[in-house]
Amino acid sequence: MAIGIGLLGLGTVGTGTAEILLSPQGRHPLLGEVVLKRAGVRSLDKPRNIDLPAGCLTTDLEAIVKDPEIQVVVELLGGLEPARTLILAAIANGKHVVTANKAVIAKYGEEIYTAANKAGVYVLLEAAVGGGIPIIKPLKQSLGVNRITRVIGIINGTTNYILTQMAQHGADFGEVLAEAQKLGYAEADPSADVDGGDAADKIAILASLAFGGRIRREDVYCEGIRSISAADISFAKKLGFVIKLLAIAERPDLEEDALQLRVHPTLVPKDHPIASVNGVFNAILVEGEPLGQVMFYGPGAGAGATASAVVSDIVHVVGLLHSDQVIQKLNPLLGCTHEHYSKILPIDTLKTRFYARFLSRDLPGVIGDLGTCFGQHQVSLESVVQIGLQDDCAEIVVVTHDVHEANFREAMREIEGLEAIKEVPSILRVL
Amino acid sequence: MAIGIGLLGLGTVGTGTAEILLSPQGRHPLLGEVVLKRAGVRSLDKPRNIDLPAGCLTTDLEAIVKDPEIQVVVELLGGLEPARTLILAAIANGKHVVTANKAVIAKYGEEIYTAANKAGVYVLLEAAVGGGIPIIKPLKQSLGVNRITRVIGIINGTTNYILTQMAQHGADFGEVLAEAQKLGYAEADPSADVDGGDAADKIAILASLAFGGRIRREDVYCEGIRSISAADISFAKKLGFVIKLLAIAERPDLEEDALQLRVHPTLVPKDHPIASVNGVFNAILVEGEPLGQVMFYGPGAGAGATASAVVSDIVHVVGLLHSDQVIQKLNPLLGCTHEHYSKILPIDTLKTRFYARFLSRDLPGVIGDLGTCFGQHQVSLESVVQIGLQDDCAEIVVVTHDVHEANFREAMREIEGLEAIKEVPSILRVL
Repeated sequence: MAIGIGLLGLGTVGTGTAEILLSPQGRHPLLGEVVLKRAGVRSLDKPRNIDLPAGCLTTDLEAIVKDPEIQVVVELLGGLEPARTLILAAIANGKHVVTANKAVIAKYGEEIYTAANKAGVYVLLEAAVGGGIPIIKPLKQSLGVNRITRVIGIINGTTNYILTQMAQHGADFGEVLAEAQKLGYAEADPSADVDGGDAADKIAILASLAFGGRIRREDVYCEGIRSISAADISFAKKLGFVIKLLAIAERPDLEEDALQLRVHPTLVPKDHPIASVNGVFNAILVEGEPLGQVMFYGPGAGAGATASAVVSDIVHVVGLLHSDQVIQKLNPLLGCTHEHYSKILPIDTLKTRFYARFLSRDLPGVIGDLGTCFGQHQVSLESVVQIGLQDDCAEIVVVTHDVHEANFREAMREIEGLEAIKEVPSILRVL
Repeated sequence: MAIGIGLLGLGTVGTGTAEILLSPQGRHPLLGEVVLKRAGVRSLDKPRNIDLPAGCLTTDLEAIVKDPEIQVVVELLGGLEPARTLILAAIANGKHVVTANKAVIAKYGEEIYTAANKAGVYVLLEAAVGGGIPIIKPLKQSLGVNRITRVIGIINGTTNYILTQMAQHGADFGEVLAEAQKLGYAEADPSADVDGGDAADKIAILASLAFGGRIRREDVYCEGIRSISAADISFAKKLGFVIKLLAIAERPDLEEDALQLRVHPTLVPKDHPIASVNGVFNAILVEGEPLGQVMFYGPGAGAGATASAVVSDIVHVVGLLHSDQVIQKLNPLLGCTHEHYSKILPIDTLKTRFYARFLSRDLPGVIGDLGTCFGQHQVSLESVVQIGLQDDCAEIVVVTHDVHEANFREAMREIEGLEAIKEVPSILRVL
């Protein structure tokens, strides 16, 4: 039984996917049953590093999603449109869909999965989060028997590369970003990566799988890394931390369905398993009861790694079709069964530790004032350290115990008004 | 649709499994379709920390594998018999089987999978390797689209705990083993762990999934950690290595089906991702083309973690039964499809780096002699360091480049005969 595949898009991941499909030797035997039928591109004339079967290339993407010889449509266009329209058309035509597109799933997941459930087809998205790391299927199929309490991810390779370079060379954000752009690790417009949007798309997807409820993408609290300075990285290091852009989904109270969802730069204790994930690598840590903690680590991007995830989804569909030629009823471990929206708690209710750096004019007085202000707002301090001098100002770093974000913010508003405080260059959360 | 479960064994993992099955709230909704029907034990009178439904406990294990109300038999007895006989009886009665028993699968896998394929039932074993870490399914279902080149595992928690303690406290093997036995991390008879047999069982299973061929358990080359001394750990550290008991399955030549399979203590470079896996934690690193490297990390043992893996298999079967009430044809991604045996290369053909420690009487002469001897057998050296003095002997450590094991062994036989060499306290391989 041959299963026909149609690719939408033949960029780096598309080319990597085609390469695997066209060289099945030494791979999973099910790949022998897969035939790459069409690859839809914008231009037929563009030079390509791959030999495709004759007649495979086409600019008619609509024809691919309707082609009766194609059972699985693989969407690798990225972005919202025409990806959304083509995915919905493929579903309407009874095709299974494999996609690497986190943005379209994070934003239109409800529409897409409702249509897929109605049509009785699968929409698989292993490549959408964590590149080559198998995380979607383990989370959906294996770890879900636990009561998941928390998912923590370094799931954006660009920002992890930038933060790693900043830490290793003491360089500032702008410098390293420019270099990353030169190397192709960051895009010309880096906003989606450095402002945290890409990580927010991905944690919305992971949270919906881990906690079994739909997530509105706009509910994810999101801070990027533009304001991180070499100074903060160096102070954090002295205190025993590294700074990472973390995406965190958490159920603070196991008795309630409410979640906390957030993306922000975070001070991570040096001996935490996720602290040593450097460069463009990704890692996802899942905590649950009774499991404890497991971590998945690997290349978060790149043609080969992402293609590996895409093809694992294709093979999954082939395995299902193989054992069950007509899919009567979707396997609930692979389909999307939840239809309610999870309740998302506002960031104000977060309980976390904070790191704040102050520039102050009058050291002896100000430490007392800081202590008093924080104390009045139930913010208890773990450490207050004068970490350096800048011009004629003392540089003070405060790390709190676990406190309510709302209390901390109120205390900070009061502190910013103090005569002795010249500036608060940074406020960061601590894992 | 309710799926009946029968447990064979109610030790720590069995109790952990029952606890998950009896408290489905907040876990994967499919657990709501699972009913724990019977739990087979040796004695009904033993006090237990769990409230089971009335009539659930029984000492009649044969009745469980025949019970028409049970669709999934969960074997948690461990050991070879009666586990093998009961698994085969369950299969013969058309039950799906979930097992955490690496020994029975490593030794009788062929017999068990042949019977399962004939009967059209699944035998799932996520819990057999890596405790709570999802590794079996990702390897079988996702990573297999790559050409896998190597699987490296720290897959025995007891030995990793012992080596970590030795490294952290400079203690010797015997001391730490005694302490581990007191804490329950090592058994009264620790042979299966410390001599590498448990890791060999597990790497045989991983290799068969990663490379798609059956493995004869006795083909796994196996060295344990009894001979590792505090001295070697300390010398290794000075050279930038930690010592870990690694289980390695490797296809040295992608053009050939032949594998290298081995368990032995290994010097691991400090910055390798697997070097920082400490204590009772496990990690499995998989390398493939075009994926690159992914690593899975988590608790390798313990009631909760292992139960999480067991129940993930149960839910898998439930998902399949749910979508396809009568299983017509096994899904090749979950069944065992390969029937040929992989060719295993003898350890002599291994190409690796070596570390060797010598006690020598006559330093100036001996370094020349060592160099000459190794050179004559095509063993090129990366470093020769006099690392200390012991009594009136110089202690010399040699690290080679990648060499053929056979050549190295021949050189060593000659070197051991040298007048100046008093003793060769250790020979270890280097990753």
